[in-house]
Amino acid sequence: MLTREHLLQLDRQDPLAALRDQFVLPAGTIYLDGNSLGAMPRAAADRVRRTLDHDWSQALVRSWNSAGWVDLPQRVGDRIGRLIGAREGETLACDSTSVNLFKLLSLAVKLRPGRKLILSDCENFPTDLYIAEGLSALLGGGLELRSVSPGEIEAAIDERVAVVSLSHVNYRNGALYDMAAITQRAHNAGALMLWDLAHSAGALPIHLAACDVDLAVGCGYKYFNGGPGAPAFLYIAQRLQAQASTPLSGWFGHQRPFDFVPVYAPAAGISRMLAGTPAILSIVSLDAALDVWTGVSMEQVRAKSILQCESFVALVEQWMPGVFELVSPRESAKRGSQVCLRHAEAWPIMQALIARGVIGDVRAPDILRFGFTPLYLSYAEVWDAASTLREIIDADSWRQPHYQIRAKVT
Amino acid sequence: MLTREHLLQLDRQDPLAALRDQFVLPAGTIYLDGNSLGAMPRAAADRVRRTLDHDWSQALVRSWNSAGWVDLPQRVGDRIGRLIGAREGETLACDSTSVNLFKLLSLAVKLRPGRKLILSDCENFPTDLYIAEGLSALLGGGLELRSVSPGEIEAAIDERVAVVSLSHVNYRNGALYDMAAITQRAHNAGALMLWDLAHSAGALPIHLAACDVDLAVGCGYKYFNGGPGAPAFLYIAQRLQAQASTPLSGWFGHQRPFDFVPVYAPAAGISRMLAGTPAILSIVSLDAALDVWTGVSMEQVRAKSILQCESFVALVEQWMPGVFELVSPRESAKRGSQVCLRHAEAWPIMQALIARGVIGDVRAPDILRFGFTPLYLSYAEVWDAASTLREIIDADSWRQPHYQIRAKVT
Repeated sequence: MLTREHLLQLDRQDPLAALRDQFVLPAGTIYLDGNSLGAMPRAAADRVRRTLDHDWSQALVRSWNSAGWVDLPQRVGDRIGRLIGAREGETLACDSTSVNLFKLLSLAVKLRPGRKLILSDCENFPTDLYIAEGLSALLGGGLELRSVSPGEIEAAIDERVAVVSLSHVNYRNGALYDMAAITQRAHNAGALMLWDLAHSAGALPIHLAACDVDLAVGCGYKYFNGGPGAPAFLYIAQRLQAQASTPLSGWFGHQRPFDFVPVYAPAAGISRMLAGTPAILSIVSLDAALDVWTGVSMEQVRAKSILQCESFVALVEQWMPGVFELVSPRESAKRGSQVCLRHAEAWPIMQALIARGVIGDVRAPDILRFGFTPLYLSYAEVWDAASTLREIIDADSWRQPHYQIRAKVT
Repeated sequence: MLTREHLLQLDRQDPLAALRDQFVLPAGTIYLDGNSLGAMPRAAADRVRRTLDHDWSQALVRSWNSAGWVDLPQRVGDRIGRLIGAREGETLACDSTSVNLFKLLSLAVKLRPGRKLILSDCENFPTDLYIAEGLSALLGGGLELRSVSPGEIEAAIDERVAVVSLSHVNYRNGALYDMAAITQRAHNAGALMLWDLAHSAGALPIHLAACDVDLAVGCGYKYFNGGPGAPAFLYIAQRLQAQASTPLSGWFGHQRPFDFVPVYAPAAGISRMLAGTPAILSIVSLDAALDVWTGVSMEQVRAKSILQCESFVALVEQWMPGVFELVSPRESAKRGSQVCLRHAEAWPIMQALIARGVIGDVRAPDILRFGFTPLYLSYAEVWDAASTLREIIDADSWRQPHYQIRAKVT
C-alpha cells in the first residue's frame, strides 16, 4: 500500500523538484490539466513584460532586428526540435496546429501523387480529422480521409495511402502509439508518416530522426507551457525539405521577404513553411518557457510521469475499488502522461474536484482526464488529488445540484 | 508658408490630442512607422499583464470561459468591424493576413466555379500575390493569378475573373483605390471583390457594407496598434456566409468544438472561418488596443491625417525643393496615411533620420516611407521631422559611412 510518507520521500529525492519554483502556480490548487494548458513559467512572464516595456513600446519596429523577432520561428523551432529528437533545421514554431496540419497534409499528398487516402484513426483529435476532410474537399480528385479504429491502423496501411496521420498520444484516453513500428509500417507501404505530438511532446522522449519520421506537428501550450494559444510547431525531415512546398505561401516563407518582389520563391529549408507575420507576444512567451528545459532530460521527466500516473491509479483503485473504469492503458509503456477514468457522473465529480482545488477536465460524455506534468507537480500532490477524489466519492458530495450545471468545456 | 507656430496652434485645437496619453512612446522619438508597427497603447500592456498575472497563471485553463478567451475572435472581430463599416457578425480576428487571404481566395474561387482568374495588381503587397500563386498551384485546373498595373485594373475585370484582389492602400506609395467604384466594376462583371485593408483600416473611413464588398482581410498591428504580429482579421459579407466554407476547417470553426465529434460541421455564420486555437496573448493585446477608439470618429482621424501629410509634403518642398520625388499621390483623396519620397540615397538618409530619433522606413531600392498616425502624432512633430530631414540634407550628414551599412529592413 502506498503511503503519503512514501510520496513525500520521492519528492525529497526528486531531481526535478526544484523546477517547480520556475513556475507561478495558484495557492491551494493541484493542477492536473497541464495537458490542456500548461502552467506559467516565470521566465515566460518576464519575457513578455520585457517585450511590452522595451521591445514593443521603446524600440518599436526596430525590434524585428534588434530583439531578433524576425527569426523566432526558426530559433524556437530548433529549441523544440531538440526536445523531440529532430535535427537542427527540421522544426519551426508557427501558426496553429490546425494550420500546420493543412500545410503538411498538402505536402504529403503532393509527394505521393496517385495515392488517394489520408489514413487516420477515428479517435484522433477532431481537428486532425477535420483538416484532412477540408483538404480532401478542396482538392477533390478522389482524395479522401479514411479513419479506422486504432487497432486497425496497421492493417489498413497499404499502397493506396499517401500519408498516415496519427496522434502519438490519444487526447482522450492517453493511449500511446509505437512511433517506430508504425512509421516503419507506413514506409514499407510507401506512405509518408505524420505524427501529431500535441499530447506527447514535452511529456516523454520522442526520437523523430531516429524513427525516420517524415512529418510532425505539435502544440506549444500544453507540456511546453508556452501560454494560451502559443504557436504550434511543425517538423519536416531534412531529406524531404528540398521537395517541400506549402500552399500557404506567405511572405515570411519567401527567400527574401524584405525585398518585396512580386513573384514567390521559397526560402531554403524549413523556413519556406512559414506563412504570415509571427504572433510575437505569443512566440516570445513560448521561447522563454522553453528555458525551463535547460539541463532537464526527457527520460527523467518520463520516469517521474510514469511513477506519478502509476501512483494515482494505485490510489484510486486502493481507495475506490470498482468506482471508476480505467480507460487509459494500464501498462505505462503504452500510455502518455495522463490518466483517464470513466464514470457516468464524470461532469459533477470533476466540478466537485475543481471546487476543492483539484483541476482536471472532462471529455464528454463520461471521461475524467488527469494530466501529470513532472516539471511542476509533486508526488505529494498526486496523493492529495486522489485523496480529494476519495472524499468526494465517499461523501457523495458531487451530488450537490450546483455541480450538475454544464458549462462550455475546453 | 507654414510656421511651427501654426502647427502648434493646430495641436492646441486638435480634438484627438489627448489620445496620445493613452500610448507609451519613447522619449525623444518621432515615430513615423506606425503603418508598419503601431505604438503600444497603455491598455494593451495592462491587459497582457493581467492575462499573465491572473488569467493564465492563476485561473489557468478555466480562463477559456471565465476570461472569455473562447470567443475573442468573434468579439474582437466585431470591434474591428465597427471601424471598417461592417455589420455585426461579418468580421473575425484570427490567424495572419496571409492565412486569411488563403481562406478567402479559396472561398471566392469556389463561389465562382468556371472562372479561372484571380486578378490583382503587380504592386500589391507581395504576400497577397504569393498566396494567390500558392492557391493556384494547389488547385491547378487552369486557375491562375493575373496581375496588371494599378491603372489597368478596371479594364482587366471581365467575365473570366473569379475575384479581384487588391490592397485598398498601396503599401509602397500610399495610393488609395476607389473602393466603391472598383467593387461595383467587379460586380458588374460577376466577379467577387476582396480588399486587403492592411494600410487603410484604422487610417481612414471604410464602408465595407455600404460599398457592398464581398470579402476583406486586414492587419491588427499597424493602425490598430494590436502589438507585433497581432492577429489579422477577415470579413465576409452576410449575404455570402451561408455558402461560405474554409479548407482550413479546424476545430475552432466547428459547430460544437468542445463536443469533440469526429466529423466536421461548420459553425453558423462567420465563426466557421476559424481554424485553430487563437493566440491569446496576442489577441487580448489587440482587444485592449481597440479601447483607444472609443468615441473617436474615423472622419476626425482622416482629417488630421490629411493635414499632417499635406504639411509634411509642403515643408519638404518648401525646404528641399527638387531633392525628393513625391511618389505618393499629391491629391489627398487618392492617398492613404503615408507620404513616400524617392531618393537614390534613401537608405543612408533614413539611417541618419533614425539616428536623430525620426523613425520611418525604406522600401528598396529608393523609397523613404513616412506613416502618419493621428492617434498619437502631433502636428509639431510633423514640423520637427521635416526639419530634421532638412538638416540632414543641408549638411549632407547622410554621407557618413556608418549610415551606408545595410541591415535587414522590416
